[in-house]
Amino acid sequence: MDLINALNWRYATKKMNGEKVAEEKVNKIIEAAHLAPTSSGIQPFEIISISNEELRKKIQPIAFGQSQIVDGSHVLVFASWDKYTDDRIDAIFDHMNTERGLPLNGTEEYKNTLKAQLFAMTEEQQVAHTGKQAYIGFGTAIVAAALENVDATPMEGFNSEELDELLGLKEKGLKSQALLALGYRANEGDWLQGMKKVRQPKQVFLTEIN
Amino acid sequence: MDLINALNWRYATKKMNGEKVAEEKVNKIIEAAHLAPTSSGIQPFEIISISNEELRKKIQPIAFGQSQIVDGSHVLVFASWDKYTDDRIDAIFDHMNTERGLPLNGTEEYKNTLKAQLFAMTEEQQVAHTGKQAYIGFGTAIVAAALENVDATPMEGFNSEELDELLGLKEKGLKSQALLALGYRANEGDWLQGMKKVRQPKQVFLTEIN
Repeated sequence: MDLINALNWRYATKKMNGEKVAEEKVNKIIEAAHLAPTSSGIQPFEIISISNEELRKKIQPIAFGQSQIVDGSHVLVFASWDKYTDDRIDAIFDHMNTERGLPLNGTEEYKNTLKAQLFAMTEEQQVAHTGKQAYIGFGTAIVAAALENVDATPMEGFNSEELDELLGLKEKGLKSQALLALGYRANEGDWLQGMKKVRQPKQVFLTEIN
Repeated sequence: MDLINALNWRYATKKMNGEKVAEEKVNKIIEAAHLAPTSSGIQPFEIISISNEELRKKIQPIAFGQSQIVDGSHVLVFASWDKYTDDRIDAIFDHMNTERGLPLNGTEEYKNTLKAQLFAMTEEQQVAHTGKQAYIGFGTAIVAAALENVDATPMEGFNSEELDELLGLKEKGLKSQALLALGYRANEGDWLQGMKKVRQPKQVFLTEIN
């Protein structure tokens, strides 16, 4: 499907039918998020892909009872670094240089400049920054799902502290930022289904300076 | 092109060749961002699309001299609301209800609950939140460009205060969050071109709980 058609086809599905999304499709959606760009290629986020039903049942009340958590087949948790650290950035650069066959110290100056910028931020700003990077991947995953004709409900409505606790994310230095429930839309019981997709008028959204 | 191939094809182009991206393609990229989902459909961001060469020349030093600003043909500025306000949220809901043929007061309870949540955030948290929504659209635009075989360089490296000043965004209650330079890759002079695309190892990036 063409991208614009796919984006018009998708909507924040409120009721899913229980049908399982094939692993092949889930993997493609995750791979798209994995390939998404991030600031300086640091990629300060991870995905926890949960198909386990018992665990999804535990997540549902943390997500204010939203049914797609259990009526879909997978929940992707986008969790970003709680802060930047020397170790984390060193590991990314070491990995990047190794994969590119470059000397480990070949990017020292660039890395130190980048660190100085990142460490100049407060911890609140840092987690907002890592969160934004996660949202590039989040947007990419939403597009990928639409192109695969998989319904995906993006969710910010959940208690991230409780979810981090349940999934042991805090010990890993991660903070859950957003959820993506994957599944297939039900034919009934979805108040949003069939409603017109509304966006800001183009003349408000877009300013062109030619 | 298939999405995964497109994401592998794209890279943060460092040197563009001056070729102009057709308006039809630029419009498609903007339309994709316009259709991207946002939290509660509030869509708290706008795009300023700049092809004007003089203005791009003024932006280049604000973006630390990055050549793609002028060697590409368009710069998309993703600018998000500096804060949530009653007026802004009312306008969005009024527009949404009108477009859907619903009574204007039909979503009053939901709207008030949402406002309470948004206004509970500090202004710093609010602009981080609007910024994240912009980043969903930013990610979507990056994907759209790749699918159109248009090179796109995502940029956070610019002085947002100076850019807001130059574009008069502060008066509009907007804050520039990210830039996307659009154009076509040059054959020479791009240090990143041909380098292996490196991402976190899958076993680090992804945790599956089945």
